[in-house]
Amino acid sequence: MGSIYKGSLISLSLFGESHGDAIGIVIDGMPHGIEIDNDFIASEMERRRSKNINLSTARQEKDAPKILSGVLNNKLTGMPLAVIIENENKRSNDYNNLIDTPRPSHSDYVASIRYGNCNDISGGGHFSGRLTAPIVFAGALAKIVLKSKFNIDVVGHIKQVYDIKDNYPNDTLPNYTEFVKNYEKPLSVFDDKSLSLMINKIEEAKKNNDSVGGIIRLIAFNMPKGLGDPFFSSIESKVASALFSIPAVKGVDFGLGFDFTNHYGSECNDCLALENDNIITKTNHNGGINGGISNGMPIIVNVVIKPTPSIAKAQNTLNIKSKKEEILEIKGRHDPSIVVRALPVLEAMLAVTILDICMEMKGRIL
Amino acid sequence: MGSIYKGSLISLSLFGESHGDAIGIVIDGMPHGIEIDNDFIASEMERRRSKNINLSTARQEKDAPKILSGVLNNKLTGMPLAVIIENENKRSNDYNNLIDTPRPSHSDYVASIRYGNCNDISGGGHFSGRLTAPIVFAGALAKIVLKSKFNIDVVGHIKQVYDIKDNYPNDTLPNYTEFVKNYEKPLSVFDDKSLSLMINKIEEAKKNNDSVGGIIRLIAFNMPKGLGDPFFSSIESKVASALFSIPAVKGVDFGLGFDFTNHYGSECNDCLALENDNIITKTNHNGGINGGISNGMPIIVNVVIKPTPSIAKAQNTLNIKSKKEEILEIKGRHDPSIVVRALPVLEAMLAVTILDICMEMKGRIL
Amino acid sequence: MGSIYKGSLISLSLFGESHGDAIGIVIDGMPHGIEIDNDFIASEMERRRSKNINLSTARQEKDAPKILSGVLNNKLTGMPLAVIIENENKRSNDYNNLIDTPRPSHSDYVASIRYGNCNDISGGGHFSGRLTAPIVFAGALAKIVLKSKFNIDVVGHIKQVYDIKDNYPNDTLPNYTEFVKNYEKPLSVFDDKSLSLMINKIEEAKKNNDSVGGIIRLIAFNMPKGLGDPFFSSIESKVASALFSIPAVKGVDFGLGFDFTNHYGSECNDCLALENDNIITKTNHNGGINGGISNGMPIIVNVVIKPTPSIAKAQNTLNIKSKKEEILEIKGRHDPSIVVRALPVLEAMLAVTILDICMEMKGRIL
Amino acid sequence: MGSIYKGSLISLSLFGESHGDAIGIVIDGMPHGIEIDNDFIASEMERRRSKNINLSTARQEKDAPKILSGVLNNKLTGMPLAVIIENENKRSNDYNNLIDTPRPSHSDYVASIRYGNCNDISGGGHFSGRLTAPIVFAGALAKIVLKSKFNIDVVGHIKQVYDIKDNYPNDTLPNYTEFVKNYEKPLSVFDDKSLSLMINKIEEAKKNNDSVGGIIRLIAFNMPKGLGDPFFSSIESKVASALFSIPAVKGVDFGLGFDFTNHYGSECNDCLALENDNIITKTNHNGGINGGISNGMPIIVNVVIKPTPSIAKAQNTLNIKSKKEEILEIKGRHDPSIVVRALPVLEAMLAVTILDICMEMKGRIL
Repeated sequence: MGSIYKGSLISLSLFGESHGDAIGIVIDGMPHGIEIDNDFIASEMERRRSKNINLSTARQEKDAPKILSGVLNNKLTGMPLAVIIENENKRSNDYNNLIDTPRPSHSDYVASIRYGNCNDISGGGHFSGRLTAPIVFAGALAKIVLKSKFNIDVVGHIKQVYDIKDNYPNDTLPNYTEFVKNYEKPLSVFDDKSLSLMINKIEEAKKNNDSVGGIIRLIAFNMPKGLGDPFFSSIESKVASALFSIPAVKGVDFGLGFDFTNHYGSECNDCLALENDNIITKTNHNGGINGGISNGMPIIVNVVIKPTPSIAKAQNTLNIKSKKEEILEIKGRHDPSIVVRALPVLEAMLAVTILDICMEMKGRIL
Repeated sequence: MGSIYKGSLISLSLFGESHGDAIGIVIDGMPHGIEIDNDFIASEMERRRSKNINLSTARQEKDAPKILSGVLNNKLTGMPLAVIIENENKRSNDYNNLIDTPRPSHSDYVASIRYGNCNDISGGGHFSGRLTAPIVFAGALAKIVLKSKFNIDVVGHIKQVYDIKDNYPNDTLPNYTEFVKNYEKPLSVFDDKSLSLMINKIEEAKKNNDSVGGIIRLIAFNMPKGLGDPFFSSIESKVASALFSIPAVKGVDFGLGFDFTNHYGSECNDCLALENDNIITKTNHNGGINGGISNGMPIIVNVVIKPTPSIAKAQNTLNIKSKKEEILEIKGRHDPSIVVRALPVLEAMLAVTILDICMEMKGRIL
Repeated sequence: MGSIYKGSLISLSLFGESHGDAIGIVIDGMPHGIEIDNDFIASEMERRRSKNINLSTARQEKDAPKILSGVLNNKLTGMPLAVIIENENKRSNDYNNLIDTPRPSHSDYVASIRYGNCNDISGGGHFSGRLTAPIVFAGALAKIVLKSKFNIDVVGHIKQVYDIKDNYPNDTLPNYTEFVKNYEKPLSVFDDKSLSLMINKIEEAKKNNDSVGGIIRLIAFNMPKGLGDPFFSSIESKVASALFSIPAVKGVDFGLGFDFTNHYGSECNDCLALENDNIITKTNHNGGINGGISNGMPIIVNVVIKPTPSIAKAQNTLNIKSKKEEILEIKGRHDPSIVVRALPVLEAMLAVTILDICMEMKGRIL
Repeated sequence: MGSIYKGSLISLSLFGESHGDAIGIVIDGMPHGIEIDNDFIASEMERRRSKNINLSTARQEKDAPKILSGVLNNKLTGMPLAVIIENENKRSNDYNNLIDTPRPSHSDYVASIRYGNCNDISGGGHFSGRLTAPIVFAGALAKIVLKSKFNIDVVGHIKQVYDIKDNYPNDTLPNYTEFVKNYEKPLSVFDDKSLSLMINKIEEAKKNNDSVGGIIRLIAFNMPKGLGDPFFSSIESKVASALFSIPAVKGVDFGLGFDFTNHYGSECNDCLALENDNIITKTNHNGGINGGISNGMPIIVNVVIKPTPSIAKAQNTLNIKSKKEEILEIKGRHDPSIVVRALPVLEAMLAVTILDICMEMKGRIL
């Protein structure tokens, strides 16, 4: 099943349904002896949960993660860490009509084919975006280990919402501190003018019972050189596989990404140079990766999030029982844009993947 | 190491260096009893190798694959199939200067960090694009099995070279036969006007000792509904991981992909509808995948190929021994655009991945 | 980490510490739509837990498993099934002295080397035999699926305790019903005379503050022919790997196993024969497996369980801090023989493995 | 398929059929920069091949391994190392009658069920013992890396043939040098009286057109402490899985193994003690492993090899086409005992597994 992340040395085992008793994750393979920062974990969970409440889902849950194992005296024991988040809002009848009239572009229809009538439709069941909460927990832990053992920082920002771009100067990547400071804004966008436009766009979509998507840029700072391998274990392969695990992600590219097609080789090759006796590249069009291996520059990944398919606006769909077309009006809670909440989730998956790559290179006993 | 593709039930084990004795691949997990079509395999190999000789590399090899195991009386035995391709052009001194002055944006520098001075620099060693020949062989086999057991067809075309787009009508995807017929052209492009412009662009780049990239679109027709799983085994995760394994791939997206950001949810949701008593979607903006699972529409994937980093044009680089900047003029053979040759390679990886997904769902004993 | 079982299509993610909040398991990859028999699950849990209370550990817990996900209307949804068992007896100071004076042949010392001082020593922490309770739960589910989809039955009996053998006629394997009936006895032994002798032996060991081991035989009835593969995925490889996961297992053999050395080839070859138009083997010295593949005869596996290393008897050990030899008297609960409780645990691992092999051959969508 | 060994960081991809063009293996994940000792590799290959020619198979091949990739200037490059061994004796008609009248206890029958009529029956096809030659090559490389990076030595001896035991004093394990010296004898047996008896026994079996099995003991000296993990990645699980991959292996145990059942806990617990300021155990009944983790004592594994099923003696079998019982007299080459040749093969699999465990703990970049 899809719910096991099998890294080379780290595994995640995700479970739960949106409206079941609890959701959670088992994190296997973390190194031992690292002190965990509970405030940091809480703040990461908070970034995904309650932020921009007007801009995103109306469901309010405490999302307090309860650690069942793997921690002793606030340190990672190296044993599997299981964490659960209890659901307060249980199964309702909001979703009953979705069994026969699946939401367009949602998992409802394919899930009914794949899993038959046992599929738990409430709130999307296991397909729910709520399942990303335990992923953020795992990512927070990965960030703590990355910082503590490798000095690596994983951050991100919203690069675009609908057609509105974050207008920070492309040539000079903001540094780690600026990224973190940026998290305090309602949307993690550098340019304040773009920020207001984006908020307006999301509110407009909400008002219209519609939704918008966007693009997120993720960065890993201080990546050591020479990690990774070519071909099937390229850093790009591993990172993309992890990021495409997140619902609503429909595209991933690195460095210039799809924009590489608009350049000649001579324009976009990254020339080596010396900086403080350290070999760097003058530009970073390749997003820190050549031949699947890190070159020491920041890892740069862009991820597109499609507009939430669950919209309140009336839509055509097929009643798959009667085989008649019907108008569907989806009740329940809707997110005008999950780009806002996707940011910490995507950072989490990048952090877990980078940690797995580091551990594969340096071993379990760090 | 990166050279093992570990699908759920199919594995590929790739080996060889550009200028060593032989390159090859072991294909493990193929079902038994399927007749192999040697002409088809040869034609797929040919698509990668010699096509558009003016547009791509000058190296001429027969690339005749030699099957060592796994085939009896022209049928797959179900045992591992090993195939080798002997190298006729052996190690030369063309590359010796690259040890100290690594090619910008190439694997030379990172490989020297990762693998030290044992790295085989000739022709890129194991990083060479030549390693994609055995991948095409594996893909040809996967296509044969997909066709024979699932009636699935995997094809592709060049969607863009530099800024020139293939102007086929976007709303109506050409059918399988049209894709195959398209393979006879010098570039697999539907619109003949675009075709000439693309050829001109590639020739211009060649003349300027430069290179261009482009975008490839891949399609899997007749995908059964309800294959795949959510989260970490989403079809997107598996396909993207496989495609990013190919050197020079820097972006992958599905359906509308990055263009999702320019649409409202109400515009890009794919509504269910009935066609000949079969449930389809009216549009296919999601590229045949919802919630990580196939919905029965064609799988559509777009892949960006960066401009070849090996260009004859003089470039700045650092002599990593002397730590002085130097002008590098790369001798040897260069491809003004590998987009042309990347097409069958990417189709191959998609075919292998789709076959692995089908087998995971239906089992080894088909 | 060791706590992920990665079958080809089924994964188990085990977590928890003996004296933590809860232990549990996430079972990923089960097919959907199968009705679960809660009484059967409870009886399997009971077989491991409370049976022969005089013969085994004094710790009394309800061990009531709480299912958090993956079940709807008493059917498997096909989504990950998470189950937790809350610990009622929490951490105590019974174990504090074990940090400096590790129990001989126990995990205490190696765990302190591997995981440092973060290791949770209470009750063995994650190494505790208590962690086998969730494994029995997973095995009960696997048995239900095996029966429902493949008509396969997995059972076992105690073949030997210390030097006392179960004297059932070796030539005629008891059938499935007899095995199940046998579970009602205090020890699952066929011959009643051996049964009393074994009970006496265990009680004698208890009285002497000592422990005894034994041999368990496991059987899978109605195994389909032609499942499995040679070499690294041989049924023997997969089953042995799973069985050696259980603490205290120190040997695994198939069919005649180590006794093969006492026979000539002509004596122990299993000749093919016809029975009711079905091809069988006249004997089953190979335990149902040739060339790593099932031949349709019952799978027969023998497993040796070493005497519990935790004994109340005074033992020499080293104080690893002072580096002086000390006499260790272990407080807390001790099992004079875990053979009794190991039986359902080993059956569970065999069932999970056989199910994984069946699913690999027949696919996820059964 | 079974022919991929997927260690945590090392993979082997085995291919070939007994009477095809070539057999071989791709070894993926080896560290780079290690000088390979070709004489040592040749001597390991020789131990498997030609030794005791009177005692084993009459087939004579040069078995010269040809390295295709992964080595430059006699050093491991870190890239996949592919090696092939060409078959000089090609397919013959010796085996044609075996399609309808499968050899008892051989893979013939199960392979025909599993792989249908595409199965290559000649010489056992992919199931042939000849496939162990590339495994010995991989093991020789693993031994070189283990010695160079971890100072670990993997050796073995024949502990028993039929009912004749090697009478070396059990309490004092011979040291590494004694094991290596022992390899010069016709059978690697310490006690010369046992040696003659074993040779007689094998010759007697040969004369009678029969076969005998035996027990092999494997040792890994200088194993670092604290490697491995509990449960599903226990050293026992990994090692047993690897050893059961070898044809004819029907049992594996560690330390006292099945003999644990004849001892009380107080007798067989290994007490910690101090030796030259190093913490050791006074005895090594647990074969160097507690809780799945190495304790620094030699790893001790015992493996039973069943008598070769291919015997020249007339045997009953069933003609699976006519469904009549027939007398089978197997033509071709037969081994009266493969115990002799199995020793280096089993050492190889232990070496590969131990190396994989070490690399998982210490990382790819050693």
